Amino acid sequence: MRSDRRQNDQLRPVRITRRFTKFAPGSVLIETGDTKVICTASVKDEVPAFLEKSGRGWITAEYGMLPGSTPQRKDREASRGKVEGRTQEIQRLIGRSMRAVVDLSALVGRTIWIDCDVIQADGGTRTASITGAYVALVDALRWLNQKHHIFTQLPTTGSVAAVSVGLIDSVPMLDLCYSEDFAAQVDMNVVMTDQGEFIEVQGTGEESTFTESQLQEMLALAKKGIAELIAIQRSVLEAT
Amino acid sequence: MRSDRRQNDQLRPVRITRRFTKFAPGSVLIETGDTKVICTASVKDEVPAFLEKSGRGWITAEYGMLPGSTPQRKDREASRGKVEGRTQEIQRLIGRSMRAVVDLSALVGRTIWIDCDVIQADGGTRTASITGAYVALVDALRWLNQKHHIFTQLPTTGSVAAVSVGLIDSVPMLDLCYSEDFAAQVDMNVVMTDQGEFIEVQGTGEESTFTESQLQEMLALAKKGIAELIAIQRSVLEAT
Amino acid sequence: MRSDRRQNDQLRPVRITRRFTKFAPGSVLIETGDTKVICTASVKDEVPAFLEKSGRGWITAEYGMLPGSTPQRKDREASRGKVEGRTQEIQRLIGRSMRAVVDLSALVGRTIWIDCDVIQADGGTRTASITGAYVALVDALRWLNQKHHIFTQLPTTGSVAAVSVGLIDSVPMLDLCYSEDFAAQVDMNVVMTDQGEFIEVQGTGEESTFTESQLQEMLALAKKGIAELIAIQRSVLEAT
Amino acid sequence: MRSDRRQNDQLRPVRITRRFTKFAPGSVLIETGDTKVICTASVKDEVPAFLEKSGRGWITAEYGMLPGSTPQRKDREASRGKVEGRTQEIQRLIGRSMRAVVDLSALVGRTIWIDCDVIQADGGTRTASITGAYVALVDALRWLNQKHHIFTQLPTTGSVAAVSVGLIDSVPMLDLCYSEDFAAQVDMNVVMTDQGEFIEVQGTGEESTFTESQLQEMLALAKKGIAELIAIQRSVLEAT
Amino acid sequence: MRSDRRQNDQLRPVRITRRFTKFAPGSVLIETGDTKVICTASVKDEVPAFLEKSGRGWITAEYGMLPGSTPQRKDREASRGKVEGRTQEIQRLIGRSMRAVVDLSALVGRTIWIDCDVIQADGGTRTASITGAYVALVDALRWLNQKHHIFTQLPTTGSVAAVSVGLIDSVPMLDLCYSEDFAAQVDMNVVMTDQGEFIEVQGTGEESTFTESQLQEMLALAKKGIAELIAIQRSVLEAT
Amino acid sequence: MRSDRRQNDQLRPVRITRRFTKFAPGSVLIETGDTKVICTASVKDEVPAFLEKSGRGWITAEYGMLPGSTPQRKDREASRGKVEGRTQEIQRLIGRSMRAVVDLSALVGRTIWIDCDVIQADGGTRTASITGAYVALVDALRWLNQKHHIFTQLPTTGSVAAVSVGLIDSVPMLDLCYSEDFAAQVDMNVVMTDQGEFIEVQGTGEESTFTESQLQEMLALAKKGIAELIAIQRSVLEAT
Repeated sequence: MRSDRRQNDQLRPVRITRRFTKFAPGSVLIETGDTKVICTASVKDEVPAFLEKSGRGWITAEYGMLPGSTPQRKDREASRGKVEGRTQEIQRLIGRSMRAVVDLSALVGRTIWIDCDVIQADGGTRTASITGAYVALVDALRWLNQKHHIFTQLPTTGSVAAVSVGLIDSVPMLDLCYSEDFAAQVDMNVVMTDQGEFIEVQGTGEESTFTESQLQEMLALAKKGIAELIAIQRSVLEAT
Repeated sequence: MRSDRRQNDQLRPVRITRRFTKFAPGSVLIETGDTKVICTASVKDEVPAFLEKSGRGWITAEYGMLPGSTPQRKDREASRGKVEGRTQEIQRLIGRSMRAVVDLSALVGRTIWIDCDVIQADGGTRTASITGAYVALVDALRWLNQKHHIFTQLPTTGSVAAVSVGLIDSVPMLDLCYSEDFAAQVDMNVVMTDQGEFIEVQGTGEESTFTESQLQEMLALAKKGIAELIAIQRSVLEAT
Repeated sequence: MRSDRRQNDQLRPVRITRRFTKFAPGSVLIETGDTKVICTASVKDEVPAFLEKSGRGWITAEYGMLPGSTPQRKDREASRGKVEGRTQEIQRLIGRSMRAVVDLSALVGRTIWIDCDVIQADGGTRTASITGAYVALVDALRWLNQKHHIFTQLPTTGSVAAVSVGLIDSVPMLDLCYSEDFAAQVDMNVVMTDQGEFIEVQGTGEESTFTESQLQEMLALAKKGIAELIAIQRSVLEAT
Repeated sequence: MRSDRRQNDQLRPVRITRRFTKFAPGSVLIETGDTKVICTASVKDEVPAFLEKSGRGWITAEYGMLPGSTPQRKDREASRGKVEGRTQEIQRLIGRSMRAVVDLSALVGRTIWIDCDVIQADGGTRTASITGAYVALVDALRWLNQKHHIFTQLPTTGSVAAVSVGLIDSVPMLDLCYSEDFAAQVDMNVVMTDQGEFIEVQGTGEESTFTESQLQEMLALAKKGIAELIAIQRSVLEAT
Repeated sequence: MRSDRRQNDQLRPVRITRRFTKFAPGSVLIETGDTKVICTASVKDEVPAFLEKSGRGWITAEYGMLPGSTPQRKDREASRGKVEGRTQEIQRLIGRSMRAVVDLSALVGRTIWIDCDVIQADGGTRTASITGAYVALVDALRWLNQKHHIFTQLPTTGSVAAVSVGLIDSVPMLDLCYSEDFAAQVDMNVVMTDQGEFIEVQGTGEESTFTESQLQEMLALAKKGIAELIAIQRSVLEAT
Repeated sequence: MRSDRRQNDQLRPVRITRRFTKFAPGSVLIETGDTKVICTASVKDEVPAFLEKSGRGWITAEYGMLPGSTPQRKDREASRGKVEGRTQEIQRLIGRSMRAVVDLSALVGRTIWIDCDVIQADGGTRTASITGAYVALVDALRWLNQKHHIFTQLPTTGSVAAVSVGLIDSVPMLDLCYSEDFAAQVDMNVVMTDQGEFIEVQGTGEESTFTESQLQEMLALAKKGIAELIAIQRSVLEAT
C-alpha cells in the first residue's frame, strides 16, 4: 500500500493554474500532490552566440528550489555562488524537452526562457516542471503571436509531458512522492509527446540495477501516466 | 492623481496568507497591490561561528526575485554565480529588522532562516518582505514552542512592519508601486515597531536631495502606513 | 565623558591633504581622528552599458580596507574572491552621494571612478570616504577642465559631506570612533549638501530601536557636523 | 555505410592498457577507436561529510578533457573557474556506475577517487570512461587488499561497462564516433553489468523523438556491445 | 650517491614522442625519468584584446596536473574553481619562453595555445613542459605553413629548452627528481636557447640562501644539461 | 642618459617611514623615487593547516595595488573576484624572502601576515615591497617580544632587501622606473641578505634573451644596490 493509498499505476492529483503571476507572458502553477512549481516563460529578443545570424530562435530553461520548499531548509544556490550538478542536469533536461516540440526556426532571433521554481517539494519536481513548462510555453507563444503576429500557426509539433516511475521493493510504481523516491532502488524519468514518442528516458539505479523486463514495466507505467497528464494540459489550454 | 487612484497617504490593498506552503515552520504569502512575496521561516540547530558557545541564537535572512517576477526577465543570481549588491543590502535589512524585536538569547543555539522570494514585483518588495517575514517568524517561534517547549512565552519584544514612502514631483506619497518608484526623486524605506519606534530609516535621493520638512512629511506618512500594516499582521496572527 | 574628551556635538580633528599621490587626477588623504582614507578620482573614456549612446557620463565608487588598517588584521577581499555585503553597501552609498551633486550630462561619455581605501580604521570610514571623495572629485573635474576644456564651469550643483551620529546609553553623539560605534544602540549616517539638504539618511538600530525625538536630535547633530566639514572642504579647495 | 566501414552493430577497436602511469593504484589507458581516456583510481582515507561515522566508504568520479584533445581547442575548465553542466552530468554518471557494483561498506572510511581524463576525443568519451574506470577501480581494490588486507575477497558484485547507441537517419547504430554523434537524432548511453542488468539508460532526442520500437532496437545493440566490452575487461584483468 | 645512481651533472633519460595524439597540430609526449607531460600546440584565429589590430600574433600557455599524476591524489583545479598561484607562475613561464624564440609578427592575428598536462609527476614538470612544448610548437608552425603557406621559413629565432638544478647538502645537482627537489635548499630553473643565451633564470632559496659561487656552479650545470636537451630536440625534429 | 639623470648604477632616492599607521604591529611606508608602498606586519595566533601541531610558525605575504596608484586606473582585484597571476607571483616571492631570514620555529604557532599595498606605482613595486616588508617584520617581531616575551633575541638570521636591474639597449641599469622597465629587454629582480647571499634571482627576457656576461653585470649592479638598501634599513631600524 502506498503512503497516500494510491494504486501503483495512479498519478497524484494534478492541478495546473494558468496566469498565476501577471508579468511573464506564460506563468503557470503546477501542483502534483504536494509538489508545487511555478513555471514562467519569458521572451528576449536575442539568441545565444552560436545561433547569431542563423535566423533561428532558442528555448532555454532554468530551475531552482526555494530554500523553504523542503522540510530541511535547502541552501540558496545564489548564496553559495554555484549551481549544483543536479540543478544543471534538470535545467538541460527541461530545455531539451521544450526544444523537441517547437520549430525553432519560427522564433527568428528570439529566446524563450523557461523558469521553473519549486515552492514546495515532495518528489517529481523535474517532471512536474516539464509538464507545467509546456503550458507556460504555449501561453508565451500565443502572446508572441498576438503581440507580434509572427506565426500563422503556433510553431509546436506536439505537446510534451513527463513523469517519474520507480522500483520499490522490486515493484514498479508511477509518480513517486519524496518518501517513495528516497526508498526506490531505481528511479526513472520519462518525457514523451502526445504522439506517444519518447524525448527522454533516464533510468538510474543508485547502488542497484534493473532487468530488461522491469525496464519494460516501468516504461508502460510512464506511458499511461503521461497520457493522462497530456489530457489535463489539453483541457487547461482549451480554456481562455 | 496616482495611477491606481489611491490617495497620497493610502496603502495598496494588503493580503497576508499564512501556511502558504507546508514544509517550512513559517510560510506566508504577502500581497501588497501587485507585489507578491513568499516569506518562509526555517529553523536550524546551529549558529554562526561568532556565536558558538555564546548560548545565544540568531536570525538571518535571504532575499531573491524569481526571474519571471518582472516584465523584463531578471537574470537568475545563482546562474551568474554572484549575489548583487542590492540583494545583499535587502538581506541585511530584513535580518536586522527581525533581530530588533526578538530576544536572541531565548533561541539558545538555533538559527532562524528567513527567506523572502518575490514571485511578482511591483515596487516595495523589500518592505513587503519585512512585513510578511514577521508573520512567518512568529509562526516559526510558535512551532518551536509547540515542538520543543523552550519558551514560557514567545521571545518577541514587539512586532515589526515596513513601508516605502517617496517624493514625486516634490509630493510625498505612501507605498510606491514600481512606476512611482521609478519616477521618484527620493525613496525612503522605514521599519517601525508596534510601539511606534524606528528600527530603520533609509532615505535616499538618487541624483536628487530633500529638505528637512520633506523628511518630516515622509516620516509621518510612513508612520501612518506602518500602523495600518501592524493592525493587519495582528488580525492575521490572531486567527488559528 | 567620551574616550577622547570630546563634547557630544564635537567632531574629531579633520585634516584633508590634496595631491596625496601623483598619478590620479584627484588624490586626497582625509584624516578624521585616527581614521585615515585615501580617496582618488580617476577618469575613463567609457560609460556603463546602460548609458551608452545616452550622451551622459557616470560616477561610480569602490571602497576597500587595507588588511593592516585594523587592530585585528582584516582578510583581503581580493584573496577571498568576494566583496562583502558591507563593502557593497558603502560603495553604492559613496557613488550615489557624488552623483547627487554633479550634472552627469556634462561628463559626456566619461566615467569618474572614485576609490576610497582605508589605511587606518577607527570608525566613520564610510562618512570620511564621502567627505574626502568630494574633494578628489572636484580635483578630477578641474583636471578634466584644464585638459579637455569641456566645461564652461564645473558641473557641480553643490558640495557634499557626511558624518555619523549615534545613540550611546540613549545619549546622541556626533562622529563616533570605533569603540563608540561598537557600543552604540543606534548608528546613523547622514549625507548632506552645502545647502543643508539631505542626500541620504540611514539610521539603523542593531537589536535596538529609537524614538522620533531621538531621531530629531541625531539629525540636528549631523547637520551641525556636516556644516563644519563643508567649511573645511571649501577652505582646502580654495588653496591652489 | 559508416565512415570507418563498420557494421551498424560493430564496436570500434578497443584496447585497454593497465598500469599506464605509475603513481596511482589503478591507472588505465582505454582506447576505443580514436577516443583515448586515462582512467586512474586513487584512495583517500576520508569520506564525504554525509558518511562520516557511518563506517561505509565511498566512490566518486571526476572527468575532464585536455584542451588539445579536440580539433578545435577546448577551453580549460580550471581557467574558466567553472565546471560545465555536461562535465558534471558525466562525473555523476561515472560515480553512480562504479558505486552500483561495489559493496561500499567494505571500504570502511575510505574514498576511491576515479579520474577520467580524455586525451583524444572522437565520441563516446563518457562510456569509454566508465569501461576503463572499472578496470582501474579493480586494480585499486586489489592494491588496497595487498597493502591493507582489508578484504577476504574483492567487494565487487559484478563488472560494469558502457556504450553509446544512436539513431542516424532513423537507423540504430552502435558506438558512435564524433561525426556520427553529431549527425544523430537520438543519442543513448547505456551502462550494464556482466549479469545483463541495467545501471543506467539515458536516451535523449535533441530536437527529435524516438518510438518504442526504436528504443528496443537501440537497447539490443547496446546489450551486444556491452557484452563484448565486458569480455575484453575480463581478459585484461586476468593478466597479472 | 643520487637515488637513481646518476652523476651530479647527469640528466635523467629523456624521450620525446611527436604526434602523440592526433587532433592538435602539435602533440608531444615528453618523458624525463618518471616525469611525463603531454604538450600540445593548437591554433586559434584570434588574438588577445591588447593585440587586436596590431597585425601581430601571440603565444600563450596553460599547464595542469592530472589528479592521478602524483602518489597523493591532487585536487582538480577545475573542481576547486581556482587556479593555484604555482600553476599560474608556470603558465606564464612557459608562455614567455616560447615567445622569446618566435617572431610574433609572422603569426598575423593567430594565437598558438600551448597546453602542458602532466600525466606522471616526479619533479621537473615545468622544465620538461618547456622542453616538450618547443617541439609541439615547431610542429604547429610547420602545420600552419603547410596548411596556410603563410611563412617562407619558420618564424623561429632559435630553439629553447629548460632544466632544473639545485643545491642538496650544498652540492649542486642537475635535473632533480621529486625526492631531491623536496630535500633541496635551493631550486633553480633555467631556460636557454641553442645559442647559449638565457631566457629565464629563476633561483629560489626556500628558507635558505646561496652564494655567488654556488650560483655560478648551478648555472654551469644547467648550461650542460640544456645543451644535451637541445640536441635531443633537434634529432627528434629532423625525423619526419 | 636616464630620464631622471641618474647614473646607471644609482638607486632612486629611498625613504623608509616606520609607524606609518598605528594599528598594525609593524607599519612602514617605503618610497623609492615615485614608487610608494605601505608595508604592514600583523600577527595571528594560528598557522596554516600543514603546520598545525608542528610547533613552528609561518610568515605569509599579500600584495595589492590601489586602483588609483597608476596613471591608467587599475581594476580592483576584489571586484573582479580574482587575483591575477602577477599578483600571486609577487605574494609568493615576498613570503619566501621573509621566511629565508627568520627562524620559523621561534614563532611557535603564530603567523605573521605581511601586507604590501602600493599607493603610487612607478616601477620596482615588488622589490620595494620586500625592502619595506623586512622593516615592518622586524617591528612586528620586536612587538611580539615586548608583548609576549617569547624570544631571548629576535629570531632573524640576517636582513633582506631587493632591487631590480635590467638591460636597456643592452646597457645594464639599476633600479628601473616604470618607463625604463617598459623599455627593458631583460628585467631581473634580485633578493639578497646582508651577508651578500642570494635568496632569489629572477631574470626574465620578454621576447628577448641575455648572455652570461650580461647576467654577471646585472648581478653586480644588484649587489651594489642591495648593499645600499640594507644600510638604509639598518639606520632606520636603529632609531627608536
